[in-house]
Amino acid sequence: MNNPLEISNTASSDSISTAHRGRAEYIMEREGLQALVATTPENVSYVIGSQLRATNWTMQIYAVLPRSANARPRLIMPTNRLGVIAQVGLPEADIYLYSDFFLEGSPEGKPSTADIDLLYHLLGSVETYSGPLEALQAALKDLGANDGPMGIDEMRMSPAIYARLSESLPAGALRPAYGLLREIRQVKTPLELQRLRTVAALNERIELELIHKIAANVHEEELAEQYRLEVVKAGGVPAMVAVGAGPRSALPLIERYFHRVQPGDLVRFDLCCQLDGYWADTGRTVVLGPPSSWQHKHFEAVKSGWERALELVRPGVKASQIFEAAVQTVQQNGIPHYRRQHVGHAIGLELYDDIVLAPGDQRELEEGMVFCVEVPYYELGAGGFQIEDTVIVTKDGFESITHMERKLYQQ
Amino acid sequence: MNNPLEISNTASSDSISTAHRGRAEYIMEREGLQALVATTPENVSYVIGSQLRATNWTMQIYAVLPRSANARPRLIMPTNRLGVIAQVGLPEADIYLYSDFFLEGSPEGKPSTADIDLLYHLLGSVETYSGPLEALQAALKDLGANDGPMGIDEMRMSPAIYARLSESLPAGALRPAYGLLREIRQVKTPLELQRLRTVAALNERIELELIHKIAANVHEEELAEQYRLEVVKAGGVPAMVAVGAGPRSALPLIERYFHRVQPGDLVRFDLCCQLDGYWADTGRTVVLGPPSSWQHKHFEAVKSGWERALELVRPGVKASQIFEAAVQTVQQNGIPHYRRQHVGHAIGLELYDDIVLAPGDQRELEEGMVFCVEVPYYELGAGGFQIEDTVIVTKDGFESITHMERKLYQQ
Repeated sequence: MNNPLEISNTASSDSISTAHRGRAEYIMEREGLQALVATTPENVSYVIGSQLRATNWTMQIYAVLPRSANARPRLIMPTNRLGVIAQVGLPEADIYLYSDFFLEGSPEGKPSTADIDLLYHLLGSVETYSGPLEALQAALKDLGANDGPMGIDEMRMSPAIYARLSESLPAGALRPAYGLLREIRQVKTPLELQRLRTVAALNERIELELIHKIAANVHEEELAEQYRLEVVKAGGVPAMVAVGAGPRSALPLIERYFHRVQPGDLVRFDLCCQLDGYWADTGRTVVLGPPSSWQHKHFEAVKSGWERALELVRPGVKASQIFEAAVQTVQQNGIPHYRRQHVGHAIGLELYDDIVLAPGDQRELEEGMVFCVEVPYYELGAGGFQIEDTVIVTKDGFESITHMERKLYQQ
Repeated sequence: MNNPLEISNTASSDSISTAHRGRAEYIMEREGLQALVATTPENVSYVIGSQLRATNWTMQIYAVLPRSANARPRLIMPTNRLGVIAQVGLPEADIYLYSDFFLEGSPEGKPSTADIDLLYHLLGSVETYSGPLEALQAALKDLGANDGPMGIDEMRMSPAIYARLSESLPAGALRPAYGLLREIRQVKTPLELQRLRTVAALNERIELELIHKIAANVHEEELAEQYRLEVVKAGGVPAMVAVGAGPRSALPLIERYFHRVQPGDLVRFDLCCQLDGYWADTGRTVVLGPPSSWQHKHFEAVKSGWERALELVRPGVKASQIFEAAVQTVQQNGIPHYRRQHVGHAIGLELYDDIVLAPGDQRELEEGMVFCVEVPYYELGAGGFQIEDTVIVTKDGFESITHMERKLYQQ
């Protein structure tokens, strides 16, 4: 790609953020807030409509989402990230910089590229403040939201900066807002759905390749490494790579690979990766050779619970209803002692977005939410099963964005 | 590797954490603190002596470092991570769990593996609390440190939990301690030095392969992809992959790759990856064909500053002295307008560990600190240069743990 400005234009036409400014405005009105300040990477990405990676856990990058859907968001970031903005495309936000970063020269009349030209333009036109608090205060003032009340995504703002901001405001002007930003993100925009489809397809394509590779003496590590390399080749970031064979199929999270597959072994996959900021999390279980009666029976039990969960997925159903029905169905279909803390979770910019299909969660599903539905079973000394797919809640049910067969795969 | 318990034994014999308990004790005495509570992944890893990855930005994992070097640290984590502990080896800390996670069965008398046996043992012997705050309070009580004063690594504890902890304690019992934990980590232990050597060697091996690959029409993206794949094959995690050719050599951070190398182009590498939790960050600059006089002159200028910086690296020298000498030397040797915000940074569990070689930092170097020394120059419309190596501060100078030639590479 030769012109990074084209990326920016494409992103603007159907952006992550603008499609749900109405939802954000509604939630801010409900809470009586003038603005929300995002601080976690996912919430910042959502507000500005593009990815802006921080390189450490404490770097202060904020995005201000004003209540009015017509007001433009603001991005507060260190000057040294400006070159990244010039490469990935302008955000849907006005930029407020802080801290010095020295770049010399001018590309005028010299060989250059579009990103360097844009960077040079931005360096000459964007204001730089002494620190992140000063830049944030300027952004809030420009939006007329500097007296609050405002919601602060409390999870990533440095406590020292939070304290200074709080002191500069009337009492009670600041409220925690990490949860509100996650609530806004519950319902996905068309561009988000597109990205979730793309990363789910990548994950399934690789998982099928891994399944076909399973044979006697194949090492778990070979499977895990192939997964990681294929994700990286596709431009993604591999995260959890749970590949457990034989006894180790009963381990929920796997970070070390010790075992070679033997005939009769279960191989349990639970694979997570990220592409363009969006997550995939899917899984299947494979048996090398014909399944034993124990394997068959237990797989059919979890599959029955999984199918029951899906039957219930539609707008208006409570998260806890799906949980209870799925667990009860597994108990009635072969695993009477079945217990579980959840049977799925929302997915998006975070691997676990807001709303988990768990006991006690009375919130209702809405059209446009996206869930990973999973009904795994882990039995130490016997084996484990994973069956996990990703579905979009539609007007009257769901659409699955994963397509692998819902069976105990056999190799 | 067949027995994960062996990993744990190896790690214990010369651990990350135990070698510097004396330094931690000294700092806690100086500050009048009974304990430090680590919350960021790097600080937690340091206290417990092993890696324990969180899968999201808000997961609450803490490690308590008691003042007395003889008291055992405590680890607070969700139950679902216990299987990971069983795989990577027991930490040098007593474990306090919170939240339910259901695993059925028993490996007794059945085919199993060492990690499953250890997990089963831990499930039956480690206490589970209702939440992270309750688990932390139990740990502090067991250490006799529950009244404080204590230091809390303020960067990753959920503000709601921090507020509840604060309310349960006498006024002033809590103090921010992210900086104190970073201060303890300034001086590296023998095991940390070993890991930093290993990851630096990996980074240089790959960088040399990339340099040999440079030829007319090679695309930046080919170089960046090869870097990422080689890091992943070695078990590492690629982070910043700044590969900029031609005009784009003047961009400090690169996240999109557009350009094919042309004769006469500079190619600037600034490559960062992580292996076993420790970072490498090294860089060189290459020219395709003979360098122009501008390229030669500017490279020699930054090289002179880099060499001047190294001449000063030894215990007792202030960070700012190195900065000032390096910048002045570049100004006197070909780039009179040279400006820079720092000429290097400590490296370890974080890419930027504590102490940056920057103006105004009066802290003195100590034996056992590790620095990336870099004197880059970026000129839009002309090109950019990177020369970055990693050195250990020794008793009377430094030892370089990177070994590539300090020259403008030519292909």
